[in-house]
Amino acid sequence: MNSPANITDPLVLFMPSGKRGRFPIGTPVIDAARQLGVYVESVCGGRATCGRCQIEVQEGNFAKHKIISSNDHISPKGPKEERYERVRGLAEGRRLSCSATIQGDLVVDIPQDTVINAQVVRKAATDRVIERNPAVQLCFVEVDQPDMHKPLGDLDRLKLMLERDWGWEDLLVSQHIIPQVQQILRKGEWGVTAAIHRDLETSRPTMIGLWPGLKNEAYGIACDIGSTTIAMHLVSLLSGRIVASSGTSNPQIRFGEDLMSRVSYVMMNPDGREAMTKAVREAVNTLIGKVCEEGGVDRHDILDAVFVANPIMHHLFLGIDPTELGQAPFALAVSGAVHTWASEIDLDVNEGARIYLLPCIAGHVGADAAAATLSEGPYRQDKMMLLVDVGTNAEIILGNGARVVAASSPTGPAFEGAEISSGQRAAPGAIERVRIDPETLEPKYHVIGVEKWSDEEGFEEAAKATGVTGICGSAIIEVVAEMYLAGIISEDGVIDGALAARSPRIFQNGRTFSYLLRDGEPRITVTQNDIRAIQLAKAALYAGIKLLMEKQGVETVDMIRFAGAFGTFIDPKYAMVLGLIPDCDLSEVKAVGNAAGTGALMALLNRDHRREIEQEVSRIEKIETALEPHFQQLFIDAMAMPNKVDPFPKLSEQVKLPPRKVLAEDGAGGDGAPRRRSREERAARRRG
Amino acid sequence: MNSPANITDPLVLFMPSGKRGRFPIGTPVIDAARQLGVYVESVCGGRATCGRCQIEVQEGNFAKHKIISSNDHISPKGPKEERYERVRGLAEGRRLSCSATIQGDLVVDIPQDTVINAQVVRKAATDRVIERNPAVQLCFVEVDQPDMHKPLGDLDRLKLMLERDWGWEDLLVSQHIIPQVQQILRKGEWGVTAAIHRDLETSRPTMIGLWPGLKNEAYGIACDIGSTTIAMHLVSLLSGRIVASSGTSNPQIRFGEDLMSRVSYVMMNPDGREAMTKAVREAVNTLIGKVCEEGGVDRHDILDAVFVANPIMHHLFLGIDPTELGQAPFALAVSGAVHTWASEIDLDVNEGARIYLLPCIAGHVGADAAAATLSEGPYRQDKMMLLVDVGTNAEIILGNGARVVAASSPTGPAFEGAEISSGQRAAPGAIERVRIDPETLEPKYHVIGVEKWSDEEGFEEAAKATGVTGICGSAIIEVVAEMYLAGIISEDGVIDGALAARSPRIFQNGRTFSYLLRDGEPRITVTQNDIRAIQLAKAALYAGIKLLMEKQGVETVDMIRFAGAFGTFIDPKYAMVLGLIPDCDLSEVKAVGNAAGTGALMALLNRDHRREIEQEVSRIEKIETALEPHFQQLFIDAMAMPNKVDPFPKLSEQVKLPPRKVLAEDGAGGDGAPRRRSREERAARRRG
Repeated sequence: MNSPANITDPLVLFMPSGKRGRFPIGTPVIDAARQLGVYVESVCGGRATCGRCQIEVQEGNFAKHKIISSNDHISPKGPKEERYERVRGLAEGRRLSCSATIQGDLVVDIPQDTVINAQVVRKAATDRVIERNPAVQLCFVEVDQPDMHKPLGDLDRLKLMLERDWGWEDLLVSQHIIPQVQQILRKGEWGVTAAIHRDLETSRPTMIGLWPGLKNEAYGIACDIGSTTIAMHLVSLLSGRIVASSGTSNPQIRFGEDLMSRVSYVMMNPDGREAMTKAVREAVNTLIGKVCEEGGVDRHDILDAVFVANPIMHHLFLGIDPTELGQAPFALAVSGAVHTWASEIDLDVNEGARIYLLPCIAGHVGADAAAATLSEGPYRQDKMMLLVDVGTNAEIILGNGARVVAASSPTGPAFEGAEISSGQRAAPGAIERVRIDPETLEPKYHVIGVEKWSDEEGFEEAAKATGVTGICGSAIIEVVAEMYLAGIISEDGVIDGALAARSPRIFQNGRTFSYLLRDGEPRITVTQNDIRAIQLAKAALYAGIKLLMEKQGVETVDMIRFAGAFGTFIDPKYAMVLGLIPDCDLSEVKAVGNAAGTGALMALLNRDHRREIEQEVSRIEKIETALEPHFQQLFIDAMAMPNKVDPFPKLSEQVKLPPRKVLAEDGAGGDGAPRRRSREERAARRRG
Repeated sequence: MNSPANITDPLVLFMPSGKRGRFPIGTPVIDAARQLGVYVESVCGGRATCGRCQIEVQEGNFAKHKIISSNDHISPKGPKEERYERVRGLAEGRRLSCSATIQGDLVVDIPQDTVINAQVVRKAATDRVIERNPAVQLCFVEVDQPDMHKPLGDLDRLKLMLERDWGWEDLLVSQHIIPQVQQILRKGEWGVTAAIHRDLETSRPTMIGLWPGLKNEAYGIACDIGSTTIAMHLVSLLSGRIVASSGTSNPQIRFGEDLMSRVSYVMMNPDGREAMTKAVREAVNTLIGKVCEEGGVDRHDILDAVFVANPIMHHLFLGIDPTELGQAPFALAVSGAVHTWASEIDLDVNEGARIYLLPCIAGHVGADAAAATLSEGPYRQDKMMLLVDVGTNAEIILGNGARVVAASSPTGPAFEGAEISSGQRAAPGAIERVRIDPETLEPKYHVIGVEKWSDEEGFEEAAKATGVTGICGSAIIEVVAEMYLAGIISEDGVIDGALAARSPRIFQNGRTFSYLLRDGEPRITVTQNDIRAIQLAKAALYAGIKLLMEKQGVETVDMIRFAGAFGTFIDPKYAMVLGLIPDCDLSEVKAVGNAAGTGALMALLNRDHRREIEQEVSRIEKIETALEPHFQQLFIDAMAMPNKVDPFPKLSEQVKLPPRKVLAEDGAGGDGAPRRRSREERAARRRG
């Protein structure tokens, strides 16, 4: 090792981590990085053959850091590095940190995209740079040949080298490797690459793979198993690069559309659990094939996999009967993180590949919610963050560094377009945006696959290709919100029948009124029942959120994050107008896409994130909404738009909310006088 | 926990360990035992339901220990213990140490044979008492029911209880248990028994089995896979009792009689390795069925298994191609201990059962030799012990607490009766004992299955049932030794043709002479070739031993242990007369039977023995006889009887060795003058 650093030694700053330290002249850059805890990949162990340890010197005067960094402050390329450059190629400015030594002050950039195999280059599916510390590491060693005087077995000599060169003590060896050891050693002419898995510090490291010669690539998958969709990233464990991302529908749909119908299927059919486990594992295997084909990767090079899922998908994937999750007390078979082997759950990847499932938070708040929490990290900051993932069930996480609470709320399928008379899934022909003129009550809308708005010239012509077939989830939020803003529906969600006199768009439909969004084939209307369905869904969500806000003792939240597909397409403003979410500065409301998938990716690329979320989940307080006596009142209050009792001052600054009018279910009467209860009144009600 | 012990507290002595200590009045006896490191089994965790923690108070005045022990010094039976006695029965004098508390000075006996299930009572196959500390422990716990407010999974709550009640931290869980957890917990009404495996202290403990309610029995197998025979003990892991012992022939024999022919088979046949692996695993499974039937045990109650074998059997059992072991440098694929799962090697026992294979010492000195070393423990004492296991290969271990050396020597199959003209395996009709009158040169012999010696009246009548069919291994040693003692063969092993004149028993047979042991059908003779074969075998063995003695720098050994079947049947005196083994006090030469099997048993019942032999094997110095230039000379010297250069003073005290005569191969000439080289002459030769 190097001698201890001296105050006169060169100062080296590593980016992007910002870690810095002084090192004696002649220290290999990789050693300096590691002493500072900066993760630099290396497979060959300093032989300048794998090219994984590339760095770039940032030249210039970094006054803030008092560093003048220059390529003159790093050793020139030696023969080994030159050979690598000649044989494998080295991009302009790139150096191998195992060979380059420190000769003066340096600012060193660790590129996060070290390209080894050209064919895997692809745009990253997530922009986030995840600091890497994967659970699997590739380690090249040169093993002594057998010696009759020291009759240690071939495997035992290999283990000695892995201890000497890489520090792996007390190594376990995956059983499937043992019969192959001798052949691999001889094929590699005593040079082999071992894949070592170490996740928990308290577990012994395990050799899970072995290849002759230098094996310079290993992959992992991060997978989110949803009730409807399975999404997967294929990632290089050595560079962190996302090689391919893809999705497929969950074939369990044929056993039941929603989660509870799948649990029922298991309860009613003796082989139901087995059939559904088989179906989801097969789908995952097929999807692995798809991402591997897309990325030009051999599936047997996949050595690690992280899965997240809601509790029922999690249990079925692991082969666990989910019946207990279908009834109180909603007991999970296992809530903690699960570590297992790919072969134990029939995944067709490398024989020694490992599997990690994030912990579940509660019987209704699964590993997917845990992964979204890891991704968005409410606990990593001081602001009060609300994280919601809306599906048939909404998972709600609320908290900050001090405390995090979680719940789920049964929103039902209305937000997904089910139970809505003209509802449909997002597809060409579906209305996705709606505006209603408050004066004329005339709508205009935007259709998926058609560039023009419906009031623009040539729209009908353009829409001929797709037709206008229904309303998708995001537009349902918008049309109801716009109807409310235009005064067509009251605070309580009743369509104002009196307006039928002003516009033919409002028309009687049995005992209630409807709104005609588009005349034609098909006729697209919003019925009183549609509005009731949306109200029930949004009230369930909001009541759950309010419950958590009360637990936290806060009247407002600082930021809102929408996870999942639903959040990506809705306009936060309309969500707030309808009162899905509490009042908040609109600029602090963001959709974060598949946060569960991103969390899975983080856990794949850095095992510290596994410990982080395991610890966090054990700290999260779970609220069971069904057991809270107050939930019912919150739910009733949340039926109103935006809410019966809660003011939305920040929203009001940006959106003109209509005056309050109260109508009977048949759309008659109402005084039209807006009324806001005082803070005191509200507090008094809540105490009651 | 109890308060710290005081000098006035009662003194408790545990037998047979002899450990003692003072404990406050009221301390449960089991707690006292554990504080002293005395292993007392308990499954129920102090609920007085498993009955595993039985002890007996030894009454009387133990003056040596200054203890007056009495049943008045232990608490009377409480209601829980009385219930156990009523329901399950408790033998006279027995107490449950979890319930009984210390009330005064005690001598407490921990019986090694706690009988729980009457049907498993059987005579122990080995007399040795092995102190127990098995790698698998059964632990009963009562688990909290699910609680919506604390939504920990069922498995997670189970793990909490195993940590709280039994101290198992950081528990891993075998994947196959996870899907069953909920059902087992509910079936057991939240009382379950977990099997916890912990072998190495550096490994995390693993839950390998789970049963509803109290599971009060678990078994293990200890198995020695020999080239010819597979031997197995079935043992209770909870009491240490051997429930059944049995053996079967190794079906690999159909691929080749000896080890090298099996290696050849693998090299010549593409599926050879697989076929042999399958054959031995099937045989082991069948044998497991046999011992389980004999012991009335369900094979799925087997939770741990220890295997020992020679290197080639070891490799084939693990599915490793043994080709490398057939050629220099005889590289083992793995020499260290192997820890794996029964399911990995297709054993049909409990799904979570563990497998342990002892380490191999060298390419020709396997886990069986390691097990014999563990059993006999040369390293545990000061005397110089020679441990030999004679088969087609002889394994030789020589050493004491200071140093142990090991080698193997290719004795060939002569000792097993192969290559001998009238040789046969030990079976009814085989001659097993021989005496020759030095005056008349007439033999008498004893035949397996016949009570009388051949010179007794009525022998021929009695022998009619079996016939007299050949000479078995032990008798070959005896007949050659007796021929030598009677002067029929010379020191160099030549049959003295001149004696043909004195007795018709010596007759010409081509260019050499033979000895007629029995006239009849068949005619049983000992030919010059037979004697040469024995000489070659014994010279190989002795030369190997001498090499190790030279490495140790000793001229004599203090004790000799014969392991294996061969050693059980031969008479040590004749082995020494022939010079198979070095001179030694005959009372210090003992056969120890299947020491490898006993070593496997020790490793099964006490994981400390695994660490002991792993450490010892890493210390043992391995000598490759083929690489020792001196071996050839030692071999040539050892062709003579007992030896060309080594005196046998201790043997000479008990056996009158014949005067030395030197004969040519054709049996002619010789001066008959015995000649002993001086110590100096011998040393000079050796230096040459």
